[in-house]
Amino acid sequence: MTDFARTRALFELPEDIVYLDGNSLGPLPRAARERVSRVVSREWGQKLIRGWNEAGWMDLPDTVGNKIAKLIGAPEGTVVAGDSTSVNLHKALTGALSLAGQRKVVLSDTGNFPTDLYVAQMAIRALGKDHELKLVAPEDVAGAIDETVAVLMLTQIDYRTGRLHDMQALTAKARENGVVTIWDLAHSAGALPVDLAGANADFAVGCGYKYLNGGPGAPAFIYVKPGLGDRIDPVLAGWMGHEAPFAFDLAYRPAAGIQRMRVGTPPILSMAALDAALDAWDGITMDDVRARSIELSERFITEIESRCPDLTLASPRDPHRRGSQVSFAFPEGYAAMQACIAHGVIGDFRAPDIMRFGFTPLYIGMDDVIRATEAIGRVMREKLWDRAEYRTRAKVT
Amino acid sequence: MTDFARTRALFELPEDIVYLDGNSLGPLPRAARERVSRVVSREWGQKLIRGWNEAGWMDLPDTVGNKIAKLIGAPEGTVVAGDSTSVNLHKALTGALSLAGQRKVVLSDTGNFPTDLYVAQMAIRALGKDHELKLVAPEDVAGAIDETVAVLMLTQIDYRTGRLHDMQALTAKARENGVVTIWDLAHSAGALPVDLAGANADFAVGCGYKYLNGGPGAPAFIYVKPGLGDRIDPVLAGWMGHEAPFAFDLAYRPAAGIQRMRVGTPPILSMAALDAALDAWDGITMDDVRARSIELSERFITEIESRCPDLTLASPRDPHRRGSQVSFAFPEGYAAMQACIAHGVIGDFRAPDIMRFGFTPLYIGMDDVIRATEAIGRVMREKLWDRAEYRTRAKVT
Repeated sequence: MTDFARTRALFELPEDIVYLDGNSLGPLPRAARERVSRVVSREWGQKLIRGWNEAGWMDLPDTVGNKIAKLIGAPEGTVVAGDSTSVNLHKALTGALSLAGQRKVVLSDTGNFPTDLYVAQMAIRALGKDHELKLVAPEDVAGAIDETVAVLMLTQIDYRTGRLHDMQALTAKARENGVVTIWDLAHSAGALPVDLAGANADFAVGCGYKYLNGGPGAPAFIYVKPGLGDRIDPVLAGWMGHEAPFAFDLAYRPAAGIQRMRVGTPPILSMAALDAALDAWDGITMDDVRARSIELSERFITEIESRCPDLTLASPRDPHRRGSQVSFAFPEGYAAMQACIAHGVIGDFRAPDIMRFGFTPLYIGMDDVIRATEAIGRVMREKLWDRAEYRTRAKVT
Repeated sequence: MTDFARTRALFELPEDIVYLDGNSLGPLPRAARERVSRVVSREWGQKLIRGWNEAGWMDLPDTVGNKIAKLIGAPEGTVVAGDSTSVNLHKALTGALSLAGQRKVVLSDTGNFPTDLYVAQMAIRALGKDHELKLVAPEDVAGAIDETVAVLMLTQIDYRTGRLHDMQALTAKARENGVVTIWDLAHSAGALPVDLAGANADFAVGCGYKYLNGGPGAPAFIYVKPGLGDRIDPVLAGWMGHEAPFAFDLAYRPAAGIQRMRVGTPPILSMAALDAALDAWDGITMDDVRARSIELSERFITEIESRCPDLTLASPRDPHRRGSQVSFAFPEGYAAMQACIAHGVIGDFRAPDIMRFGFTPLYIGMDDVIRATEAIGRVMREKLWDRAEYRTRAKVT
């Protein structure tokens, strides 16, 4: 059984708040602080250019990728870290389209994170393809998978509601229909057990700064199924994806497999933070994390529903149909979330009316949940949100 | 007159080496060390998600972009930092092709950095274009610019020889012939005066980790001429380039101008290091930097040529025809550079036979140059490079 008191001690968290926003930005692992300090002062500062060889910088995209692979059911050597989730999705989608033959439909759902849809809209247009990006309601995805679909592109967990797609079933149906699959694991990796190999998914991408705690804007990752990478001509081709980067050939010869998904020089400071953060997962089973996440979120829902009649559950009530977040709808949700933050509970807001709370057993326990529900209860009961200062929208919500 | 003793004190450099590789990875500015420490411990650690608003994280791509703009003759609001140079070049080239009408030639030269050519080869193929990537010798570029050329894509300073293209003249000829221009400033930004607006260039990209000292794999940058950005439909479309990222619209509506060149969430740790590093340029004139760089490199050439008859100058002898690096050819260049490094002079090697040395007046003075030439002289005179240990190729050269 995972010892969550031990993992809690791996993180630095301010004492005066309950942090229920690890689904948006994970907190600082002590190991990441120490690692970044070392990379800056001793590696960059003292080794300088020699750091690329002597400090393992050049291998970090693989090192980090392999650590992430263990959390998402991917074999060693099938994941690389780097770039942003959007850029990796662009690689995955253009790769998928190149494999998809003559079909003309890219299927996704209206609950997908908008950047995924932007990537698809503009990639299709840029490639001069006559594909249609077909969006259906999340519950209609399974029914829309048929032999007209080229690519199924989904985010497993809805960023607003936490609704969880059945990756296994949808991927199986896609495969039966000859559809190439892309899964965005932004809210899945580190949140619950994922089995990419078991599901036989073709591509996956995900985020390093949410449940993986890699720091603000941490590098993202991309997975390509074994054997598939070699069949893709990268649209984004850079020297780090070349078979021999330091031969400086004038002609592009893609490296084998997942390596060709590398593009430019990796951002070492950000990559090192993520690498160190991932060590928090050593010796942890994702099943334990999931079980604990459900305990925490179930208690949170019970407490909020009894304390806050004005809040309406916007997440699936069945914990097995949601990820590791719980959302409540409230017309004044933005102001209410600002008031919660001012009163010591950090969650976030998603337009138009969603108050979102993440549950991250590595560093959040039942005491935190109780403390949070008490504070939220007071904010709602006393209408503390009804103040002008809480209505002023910040640039980033 | 710039006080280079003052700027030298802004950097942390090991005392036992002379660092002539700032053209590959700039050294650590004290301000970057302090800034990264603050961003990690106080911003990420204490503000957590609030850092996006309260610590200016979301604006960093612009903040950094505007600091770089000043160094390359670009107006405020025309440069954003982020992604890698390769990814930014992909944005620039796909943007340029969308503006270039029916012409079918992308013109570049054989001295271009290979990643630039890889980007072009694969972007052309992916877009389903029937463009030809036409490569000519660097000295033949001007003669090859004619009305068949869609896009002129050049790196201003040759990464091997330091040969400097005349940006003003080539851009003017390109414009006369209706050719869209892209300049890669990887070895130019922070190395010598660049005047993008004066040259009337259309696009430029460049690197944050060489002369700008932003740290290993620092974010890159992209410039788009005022008025041009609004005419481009980004191929790489992400939420940070949307008109209203936090409205979470399902349809992509590109932000105005350069802002649509943003894609995913910016890597804050790496971006903050670059932001702090750029403050080293406050109060410095690029003309002074250039004059001092020429003094240093001229003396270096004189000393090496008198001490090392086996080394052949591979850079243009006229300092006004080269950037801020000096290269010598030597058949055993790899081993010789390893021996130089072992004897306290860090430069680097570029296949097949180039020993490369960078001159960076912010932190390298004439004493360093003399010390370096003495050590290199000894390595060559005593054939210290002729040892097996220096021949073993590292992963990164």
